[in-house]
Amino acid sequence: MSSGPSDIHSRRLAAVRDRARELGIDHVVVYSGEDMSYLTGERMDSHERLTALVVPVGDGTPLLVLPALELTGVTRRAADRVGAEIHPWADGTDAVPLVAGTVSGRIAVSTALPALHLVPLQMGVDGEVILASEVIDHVRAVKTPHEVGELAEAARRIDAVHARMDEFLRVGRTEAQVGELITAAIEQEGLTHAEFVIVGSGPNGADPHHGVSDRVIDTGDIVVVDIGGPLESGYHSDCTRTYSMGAPDPGVAEAYAVLEEAQRLAREAVRPGVAIGEVDAAARGHLAAAGLGELFIHRTGHGIGLGLHEPPFVAPGADTILAEGMTFSVEPGIYTAGGWGARLEDIVAVTADGRRDLNTGDRGLRVL
Amino acid sequence: MSSGPSDIHSRRLAAVRDRARELGIDHVVVYSGEDMSYLTGERMDSHERLTALVVPVGDGTPLLVLPALELTGVTRRAADRVGAEIHPWADGTDAVPLVAGTVSGRIAVSTALPALHLVPLQMGVDGEVILASEVIDHVRAVKTPHEVGELAEAARRIDAVHARMDEFLRVGRTEAQVGELITAAIEQEGLTHAEFVIVGSGPNGADPHHGVSDRVIDTGDIVVVDIGGPLESGYHSDCTRTYSMGAPDPGVAEAYAVLEEAQRLAREAVRPGVAIGEVDAAARGHLAAAGLGELFIHRTGHGIGLGLHEPPFVAPGADTILAEGMTFSVEPGIYTAGGWGARLEDIVAVTADGRRDLNTGDRGLRVL
Repeated sequence: MSSGPSDIHSRRLAAVRDRARELGIDHVVVYSGEDMSYLTGERMDSHERLTALVVPVGDGTPLLVLPALELTGVTRRAADRVGAEIHPWADGTDAVPLVAGTVSGRIAVSTALPALHLVPLQMGVDGEVILASEVIDHVRAVKTPHEVGELAEAARRIDAVHARMDEFLRVGRTEAQVGELITAAIEQEGLTHAEFVIVGSGPNGADPHHGVSDRVIDTGDIVVVDIGGPLESGYHSDCTRTYSMGAPDPGVAEAYAVLEEAQRLAREAVRPGVAIGEVDAAARGHLAAAGLGELFIHRTGHGIGLGLHEPPFVAPGADTILAEGMTFSVEPGIYTAGGWGARLEDIVAVTADGRRDLNTGDRGLRVL
Repeated sequence: MSSGPSDIHSRRLAAVRDRARELGIDHVVVYSGEDMSYLTGERMDSHERLTALVVPVGDGTPLLVLPALELTGVTRRAADRVGAEIHPWADGTDAVPLVAGTVSGRIAVSTALPALHLVPLQMGVDGEVILASEVIDHVRAVKTPHEVGELAEAARRIDAVHARMDEFLRVGRTEAQVGELITAAIEQEGLTHAEFVIVGSGPNGADPHHGVSDRVIDTGDIVVVDIGGPLESGYHSDCTRTYSMGAPDPGVAEAYAVLEEAQRLAREAVRPGVAIGEVDAAARGHLAAAGLGELFIHRTGHGIGLGLHEPPFVAPGADTILAEGMTFSVEPGIYTAGGWGARLEDIVAVTADGRRDLNTGDRGLRVL
């Protein structure tokens, strides 16, 4: 028995079919991007041209509907991995009927499928279109040991960039200059590219989704650095550390210590059988008890894998039950508008009896 | 009367409302990305968190539904440009009801809205959800002189990269090495980044969507170079030229001359009042008459603006009637599987009585 990649992909397809069958779904329509990459090994992004893998949940042959100009050795091999027939379509013809004509009953579609294709599909099908969240996303959420290994390797590489932060983050440089140095280091570590680089210094640290700006780093600044990039295999990294340019103000150091403990408690809450909302509650409760609850303005984390942000989400009240192989970020933060911000983010994997921290760098407020 | 950016955006909003009213549409739901950038000046990409501008077609106030952590000075200013009230929503709450509860009747949604948000929206609304293609895309398709000027400036910069191709494209380098040099040059020309770089040498030129590979450029190769990147304002460039490494085989030179004439005839067909399918037919007909029709395996072009590929598409039978201000690519190609490929691409703008070529570099098969 071979253990080649086609085995991985046929196992994934079987898992999707099994789950769909449990839920009484008749067809699954897989769109370009992460779902397609998960199931066939190729993203097959094709912009406004429709690419879709149509999976009959029963015994039928999967069908890959593909723009004719994307019919290459690469896409033929991807189709072979899941035993799919290819239906190429030419520019100037309408691809939606190729999908609509082959599906019926309860039809689950990738959450990424855009309205551009979904609305005509709904008008053309004899059946009910629902989200594939409980099918594809559900299967994707539980990683194999190989996938956890890929995420651990990505984490190791982004940790190595944080470990070199004293080379990049210096008083007198702009956030944008620091960002360029970090971008180069991410590529040096063998991640394919810097998918995002946040260098939030001083008041900019209080905007969780700040990127970089022309603000010059100054002595006394607190700086949030949130960075990541994928491996060639598509598995992502995402890690935040907070730095202090010189000794921090005692009030800041005290608040950071509360944040660090909140993040530790959230990681400690991770084990099979627990609702993911409990992980959020562990961080949120500790910050609230210290009077910092109002400063934590976002959820505690997000799933990570072939998607940078994917289910399950670590949000208040979220009821996904943790299972071995789930991987997500734990990243509480505190933000004082106009003042400063801090965030601490690690990726964790649920194990048989607890968790594994995939990022291992020092979690303290690091003084540069 | 001010001529600031808010005037641009309120004029665009008025145009969208007028068009929606003509079509009997009651509400327009504008999603993050290009549509949002067009109407508010900010893309507001927010991944899996819903961001939407809800526009009542009658006299009501537009509503910007926004993740609370994206509530910054930037998004407040964007909302102000269209007089929108902001409804922030917190992680752990459901944003879809904020949209669903305020729309009814015929509801047109951005084509980019993903199933993740669209399916729950459809379930929550009292009305019929249709695509906004005939509303937002229709308005976006006709550029103002300012927008045409931005596209012309982007074209000028990408032309400048092609003009320097002898520095980058040399025998003995791999396609990937050539691609890195081109990427650097695109950034040097002041485009924000290289959005795509195709260096298709020899047989790789026969795959229209090839990127770069480790194939080493050899003497005698025909090389398709298709490159582009946006200005800071978001307007795109996209230009293809074909190069010959040394004197080309006479058969190749002859076929390229047919392609060049096909592309010229297609550009000549561009004028107001003509169906865009006639532009495609002009290129396709000339290639077919020369016996090369089977080698032209894609449409002739795509609209370009804030989107790299946007309506109108230059495809067989396409019935969009050209109007002054429309901008699109004209890019026929010929592809011999396993052999070589060639493509010639310019961006054109429809003028009051004909067209303007935004790319102006030499269109011949350039020998390096």
